[in-house]
Amino acid sequence: MDRILLAHGNGGKLGYELIKSLFLASFNNPVLAQLDDAARIEIASGHLAISTDCYVVNPPFFPGGDIGKLAICGTVNDLSMRGAKPLYLTVGLIIEEGFPLPDLETITASMATTANEVGVQIVAGDTKVVEKGSADRIFINTAGIGMIPEGINVSGANARPGDKVILSGTIGDHGIAILSCREELAFRTTLESDCAPLNQLVSQILQVCPHLHCLRDPTRGGLATTLNELAIQSQVGMVIEEARIPVREEVQGACEMLGLDPLYLANEGKLVAIVPASETDKVMEAMLTNPWGQNARVIGEVQASPSGMVLLKTEVGSTRILDMLSGELLPRIC
Amino acid sequence: MDRILLAHGNGGKLGYELIKSLFLASFNNPVLAQLDDAARIEIASGHLAISTDCYVVNPPFFPGGDIGKLAICGTVNDLSMRGAKPLYLTVGLIIEEGFPLPDLETITASMATTANEVGVQIVAGDTKVVEKGSADRIFINTAGIGMIPEGINVSGANARPGDKVILSGTIGDHGIAILSCREELAFRTTLESDCAPLNQLVSQILQVCPHLHCLRDPTRGGLATTLNELAIQSQVGMVIEEARIPVREEVQGACEMLGLDPLYLANEGKLVAIVPASETDKVMEAMLTNPWGQNARVIGEVQASPSGMVLLKTEVGSTRILDMLSGELLPRIC
Repeated sequence: MDRILLAHGNGGKLGYELIKSLFLASFNNPVLAQLDDAARIEIASGHLAISTDCYVVNPPFFPGGDIGKLAICGTVNDLSMRGAKPLYLTVGLIIEEGFPLPDLETITASMATTANEVGVQIVAGDTKVVEKGSADRIFINTAGIGMIPEGINVSGANARPGDKVILSGTIGDHGIAILSCREELAFRTTLESDCAPLNQLVSQILQVCPHLHCLRDPTRGGLATTLNELAIQSQVGMVIEEARIPVREEVQGACEMLGLDPLYLANEGKLVAIVPASETDKVMEAMLTNPWGQNARVIGEVQASPSGMVLLKTEVGSTRILDMLSGELLPRIC
Repeated sequence: MDRILLAHGNGGKLGYELIKSLFLASFNNPVLAQLDDAARIEIASGHLAISTDCYVVNPPFFPGGDIGKLAICGTVNDLSMRGAKPLYLTVGLIIEEGFPLPDLETITASMATTANEVGVQIVAGDTKVVEKGSADRIFINTAGIGMIPEGINVSGANARPGDKVILSGTIGDHGIAILSCREELAFRTTLESDCAPLNQLVSQILQVCPHLHCLRDPTRGGLATTLNELAIQSQVGMVIEEARIPVREEVQGACEMLGLDPLYLANEGKLVAIVPASETDKVMEAMLTNPWGQNARVIGEVQASPSGMVLLKTEVGSTRILDMLSGELLPRIC
């Protein structure tokens, strides 16, 4: 049998065998192996972070990763953006009938590798199979919980006037890597998605700056949308210097060719940190030592006004309003 | 705007407005309203139950419920089957471009109503939109966490020879209700899905029998598959009396017409409880007072052998092996 059948999702024998031979073998841990309706784990008192994301990226395999790696990194990063140490993940799969079993094995192996790298356990899962034509290959949901260390309270609502805005590296790599392998648009590039788990980077940042104000990863909607969300949530303004935002040559070139703006392209291994001005040097120093922060830059600062808005100082010296993404840029980028 | 657009899932403006106008308004709670990458909640030390399920039911609206109600009940029930008090849920939506917004509003309202009834908070969510034809209308993932009270350890591995097997009510209602409204097969019935949250029933059972052995809800794969799972997990045998299994006349009739066996049909508001023989009366008494347990019956008992197998004493007096579901019976039943 080399393809997924409807019967793999019926809750009966074939599904049970798939769970045992593939998922239990790959995500090997005693909690999952209990095979109960819910996992049972012991936890200390404190603050939990909880998050979920669905992954529908097209295509499911792309330069620098696949939907499995993305599904682990995405939820690990969402938990990390609250300052949490990611601990446990759940995985829900929706698979189209006929999906190649070897592809599912590759995706599962990616998930296992990334989960091991992060140090999270996959403790619960579910698989549904839908008829051919009722879904496009494979969709994945991950949900996760993490423990927020005592005294840490990172939130998008905490930006204050005078704070510095730090970006951890180049933008647009994920968006352009995905586009480069879309059938209707395939072009050659050596660029890879930046898809990566950011929990270690966050942990290093919080070690030197436990009272950091905000962390957020600029995924769908890109850096421009993320900065706007933070400005609205914190009721502050921001001024960003375009010249300070690192963009790879390949991304800049592809954007010019395709008429795209890197500020709105998705990233899957980058973060924005908003820190008190006095802590900026310490945070920058910590970030630059981490492989996922080695191109970090201070790209701007927080101001009291205009509240809820982001201003961009362009390379030619003018200032314009940088709005959230509106309309549709790139469906199914993550 | 009366339909979901790709731009509702791009992480930008339209999605942000949908979150604020629909999800925050419906799932109204201060944790969700933080709008951070992850929710932050305070928790006491102890044992957590964690579970996840994807819902792809076809059609998404059916007699007795809809995919929204199902998605809340399903995960609440999985947590309950571990003896946990369900506390927090996450919701991930994958929506086909063009899905009617009023239908999404109805589904969201169902989720909110059911969550309120249970007393769980929806604390995190995600919405993806895929191109027309890349998914069939709407798929929902819910993940959840609950707190398992001190001293409770319900697991499918705990059945012991001599235990009694209790079924909380009639089987097959959900399966037949879904089939009755499938386009290719539509037939008239007054039957409704049994889709219901079982947390209250479980709480009443555990009050009188805190050392209950197993709980499991016979969803996909039906009662037969659930009993087999429990027999394998506990390494015991079971003898079930067919005549004691309650089946509604409408379900029996539809099964005869369609050539189906109610033992393999999905249920979404029933549970199997395996209890020490000495506690059976107390548990039955508690169940019969609850609206979701009023048709409860002792349907059989656990034996030492044959290990991992379920025997069915048929109404005509013979005994046969009752196997797990194999092959595909009814795709997308939940």
